[in-house]
Amino acid sequence: MIQVFVTGGTFDKEYNYIDGKLFFQDTHLPRMFERGRCTLPIDVKTLMMIDSLEMTDADRQIIAHNCFRAKTDQILVTHGTDTMVETGGYLSEAPGLENKTIVLTGAMIPYAFGTSSDGFFNLGSALSFVQVLPPGIYIVMNGRYWPWDQVRKNKKTGFFETL
Amino acid sequence: MIQVFVTGGTFDKEYNYIDGKLFFQDTHLPRMFERGRCTLPIDVKTLMMIDSLEMTDADRQIIAHNCFRAKTDQILVTHGTDTMVETGGYLSEAPGLENKTIVLTGAMIPYAFGTSSDGFFNLGSALSFVQVLPPGIYIVMNGRYWPWDQVRKNKKTGFFETL
Amino acid sequence: MIQVFVTGGTFDKEYNYIDGKLFFQDTHLPRMFERGRCTLPIDVKTLMMIDSLEMTDADRQIIAHNCFRAKTDQILVTHGTDTMVETGGYLSEAPGLENKTIVLTGAMIPYAFGTSSDGFFNLGSALSFVQVLPPGIYIVMNGRYWPWDQVRKNKKTGFFETL
Amino acid sequence: MIQVFVTGGTFDKEYNYIDGKLFFQDTHLPRMFERGRCTLPIDVKTLMMIDSLEMTDADRQIIAHNCFRAKTDQILVTHGTDTMVETGGYLSEAPGLENKTIVLTGAMIPYAFGTSSDGFFNLGSALSFVQVLPPGIYIVMNGRYWPWDQVRKNKKTGFFETL
Repeated sequence: MIQVFVTGGTFDKEYNYIDGKLFFQDTHLPRMFERGRCTLPIDVKTLMMIDSLEMTDADRQIIAHNCFRAKTDQILVTHGTDTMVETGGYLSEAPGLENKTIVLTGAMIPYAFGTSSDGFFNLGSALSFVQVLPPGIYIVMNGRYWPWDQVRKNKKTGFFETL
Repeated sequence: MIQVFVTGGTFDKEYNYIDGKLFFQDTHLPRMFERGRCTLPIDVKTLMMIDSLEMTDADRQIIAHNCFRAKTDQILVTHGTDTMVETGGYLSEAPGLENKTIVLTGAMIPYAFGTSSDGFFNLGSALSFVQVLPPGIYIVMNGRYWPWDQVRKNKKTGFFETL
Repeated sequence: MIQVFVTGGTFDKEYNYIDGKLFFQDTHLPRMFERGRCTLPIDVKTLMMIDSLEMTDADRQIIAHNCFRAKTDQILVTHGTDTMVETGGYLSEAPGLENKTIVLTGAMIPYAFGTSSDGFFNLGSALSFVQVLPPGIYIVMNGRYWPWDQVRKNKKTGFFETL
Repeated sequence: MIQVFVTGGTFDKEYNYIDGKLFFQDTHLPRMFERGRCTLPIDVKTLMMIDSLEMTDADRQIIAHNCFRAKTDQILVTHGTDTMVETGGYLSEAPGLENKTIVLTGAMIPYAFGTSSDGFFNLGSALSFVQVLPPGIYIVMNGRYWPWDQVRKNKKTGFFETL
């Protein structure tokens, strides 16, 4: 079984046509797995729906705690890209996760924005890496994976780069 | 470097609005990698654009030969789902591919048909598996991978099943 | 009130991922009016779901009869493009429609095929023309309207041309 | 010939994946007419690319001047929905537009956001109304048209309502 934890991020943002701003409604994850015709046993649980720039260590503690309590060693976390690496660092120090493969992924363009979004590709990528990588905390973006401490987001280009 | 070979299949089919039938034009792969914001070194080469029900052993020989000649050991082949497993079997017996990781993937709904297609998810998935699986011939569909001889397509449901 | 009659056509075709052929399921019309944020009183009724190449005079009689029975003079008919003009001719001779504005429209690419389809544009166009044109039988395609006897479909290009 | 003037608005907004905000790039209008398979002679000219909340009377003067100078009496203006009615009022007092049919339309969701946007429907609708309505200044939204002084936008619901 693969555990998926939703934390929000651009991945799940929607456009509010009343005020023209982005906001969070329900996650798209279950519908995305269905569209991907995924037949793996997957459990999707929404932990929070926030912009990762607003993520605090209290939020990260919730993620760590849920990863610890998950009854599987394969965990996929959707997360805003801005502090994805920081959350990776937090999880790397959380106790009891040593035997787990935890993959953080996100999107640069909301899934709800149709055929321009990278989200569906990233989800397929993260879901695949989490099945085969050895225990550790990983970032999956741009078709690649990195151990969390070997990557950073280039905020000017929006691409992730090897440290 | 990752070598991508395009052979056609539902993945790359288009709708012809003149006669209402599906046909092949150019592959969508390069545009898909771009949309996926992929930063891996990837070479896309179109070997053929055919429906996999029409694929002959002469076609499979071309695929095998190009896999053999490829200067990398990570090879992704897009392929129609109907005979994907058969091509996997052919490649497993072709000489000189022993050290290569060859992943075959496809789609149940053409990428050109927008937000209903599974193609973009499958591409992210296949691209990820090809980077980490040991040498062998694999089928990647439904978010999963199988060695070619442990899977079949259920033609009634359209899902791939473990043998 | 505007009466909408659905007869099928490319407009409402879907892709069957099991056999790779196009088929009809439910009409997309209600969902399209919702997405268009349409606030007009509209009644959508499905008369048939067929390819217009298979439309017989018995089918056309059903359309004519329902146009006659409709409690409004503004009627929009979705229809396959191949015999749209022929159905226009049939309706022009049907008794009791003299005071009605009947607009036939369709699509060259199924609405279900996402951002390549012309269907949503054609629907907005047909819905607008039906509100303002005088009684008569019209074809609406390519952003234009024609009285049914002043137009033909060019089957080589897929565009409608003035006679 | 139909003259189309682009002024921006939600219609043409894009998502900036670097800062997560909406912005303007090039207009989508020409590509939309092509997708709508429109065969009318249309000239698209971008006058400005602004949010209609930022539109000043100096901007409106530019719109009025260009409407006046246009060599056709059928004019379609894309415009943000928030001050669309206000611009309609400005145009109604501008000299030399008495013989022209000017239709203002917009969108509640950007065209670039794929299959959730109302823009493509509104464009088909506005293009149709501009061909058949008598001279005057009109608002076209929600599948309907109103003379500019008989409508207002309900900012809570996002729908246009008859005064």
